[in-house]
Amino acid sequence: MNLVHKIRAMQRLGRQWREAGKEVVLVPTMGCLHRGHASLMERARKLAGPKGRVVVSVYVNPRQFGPKEDFARYPRDLKSDARLCRAAGVDVVFAPKDVEMYPADFSTAVQEEELAGGMEGAARPGHFRGVTTVVAKLFNLVLPDAAVFGAKDFQQAAVIRRMTRDLNFPVKIIVAPTLREADGLAMSSRNQYLSIAQREQATVLWQAIQRAQEAVARRPVAAPRLREETARTVAAQPEARLDYVEFFDPDTLQPVKLVQPGTQMALAVFVGPTRLIDNARL
Amino acid sequence: MNLVHKIRAMQRLGRQWREAGKEVVLVPTMGCLHRGHASLMERARKLAGPKGRVVVSVYVNPRQFGPKEDFARYPRDLKSDARLCRAAGVDVVFAPKDVEMYPADFSTAVQEEELAGGMEGAARPGHFRGVTTVVAKLFNLVLPDAAVFGAKDFQQAAVIRRMTRDLNFPVKIIVAPTLREADGLAMSSRNQYLSIAQREQATVLWQAIQRAQEAVARRPVAAPRLREETARTVAAQPEARLDYVEFFDPDTLQPVKLVQPGTQMALAVFVGPTRLIDNARL
Repeated sequence: MNLVHKIRAMQRLGRQWREAGKEVVLVPTMGCLHRGHASLMERARKLAGPKGRVVVSVYVNPRQFGPKEDFARYPRDLKSDARLCRAAGVDVVFAPKDVEMYPADFSTAVQEEELAGGMEGAARPGHFRGVTTVVAKLFNLVLPDAAVFGAKDFQQAAVIRRMTRDLNFPVKIIVAPTLREADGLAMSSRNQYLSIAQREQATVLWQAIQRAQEAVARRPVAAPRLREETARTVAAQPEARLDYVEFFDPDTLQPVKLVQPGTQMALAVFVGPTRLIDNARL
Repeated sequence: MNLVHKIRAMQRLGRQWREAGKEVVLVPTMGCLHRGHASLMERARKLAGPKGRVVVSVYVNPRQFGPKEDFARYPRDLKSDARLCRAAGVDVVFAPKDVEMYPADFSTAVQEEELAGGMEGAARPGHFRGVTTVVAKLFNLVLPDAAVFGAKDFQQAAVIRRMTRDLNFPVKIIVAPTLREADGLAMSSRNQYLSIAQREQATVLWQAIQRAQEAVARRPVAAPRLREETARTVAAQPEARLDYVEFFDPDTLQPVKLVQPGTQMALAVFVGPTRLIDNARL
């Protein structure tokens, strides 16, 4: 396995692979890799085949963090990340530097302007603009045939899929399922911010989703009623605070009035100072 | 020579060429091709070499026209364009359709936010956003190694070069010199809008540039004084009206106070209802 820092070296590899006709699959990450990421890499490995190449980018992209968010303290551990990648059969870990990714006179943005509006886009202004910009850069640096994203970031995957189609990137977007801890908590690098008490309370996201699942399995429910029920479920945990919950069409991300099987549910919850997200098809 | 309309067919060709290791050079145009374009194609042909491929895109991109601009009446003549391309040794004319380039739910933009602010960007809000978006799309559809742009659109070339660098497109940007009619008028598809009287008066852009050249060759001149002189030169033509004239650093596009050899001059002039631009290094 190779560890590549320089963007020129990465792009040179990408071009060589293209000319050699190799299937290249990219897994973009912010590092601090866990089993959820490992499952994306396994998917990438299968897609690339034994003759293909799997690249995992490890880059905590400053442009997708708001000024009051956790960019500075976001966990970084490249050694441990590299170990996990090697074990998952990854060919290249691409860990570029800020100074190369964003030179002082950097002045371009890629922006999706429809799907990126609500939920995470509303709660985190500028977040998706940062995401689509860095993903466009990574596509051009790695030149992959496919890229694998996690389903935990449901809206992100939708925004990236749209951006990829709109700008005609020759990249297939794969969304792989969320991995969960035994008690249902979605795996996330941010889980390690949680105290023991907060970690227990953090299961409330999955509980709220399960309650909605059960309710909707019985009969369609008006969205405001399910929203109230979710708020009550979250409020039962002393350190938890609901940021938003939305019920929407999984393709258009348009909110629905009546929640039924097939509706997508997504929510964001602060547990102490840590903001967690989760989602599911109901 | 092939005429390709479908974006999938174009991208398939682009990928095949990449895998075959062919040098691919793109000349993006809005069609209505003239000798100025032909000179870009010759440059492209040289860059690609006899084994490479030259693609000329012919696409009147609706997103780079303002609501009151000349999109509807912009001249289109694909047959004549194809003849000119064939004569220039072009391999593929790529003429995509609006419905494929911009499906109804298209929602992504690429925007350069520093160099695109003044001059054409100020006079034509949204123009460069449309340009950078369509150029990003064309890069992804054709997958060229290099792209050739005309120097007449000086600011456009600077904006595209920056966008290409910032998003790490693996594409070399070449800017080829402006071709001029015998009396100095820069070649432009929009010249055919001009009446005989207007065509004569349209030489005023080149006259103004030459006067500035002469003044600056003697000694450095304060920008406001040269601006006044340009305004006077333009006003001497009954149907001409100065839109803007700027004197700036050719790399940063920052306006200068003192105009000297090496300063870039750019101006836009309405001749009747037709808006023409020109520029030169002084």
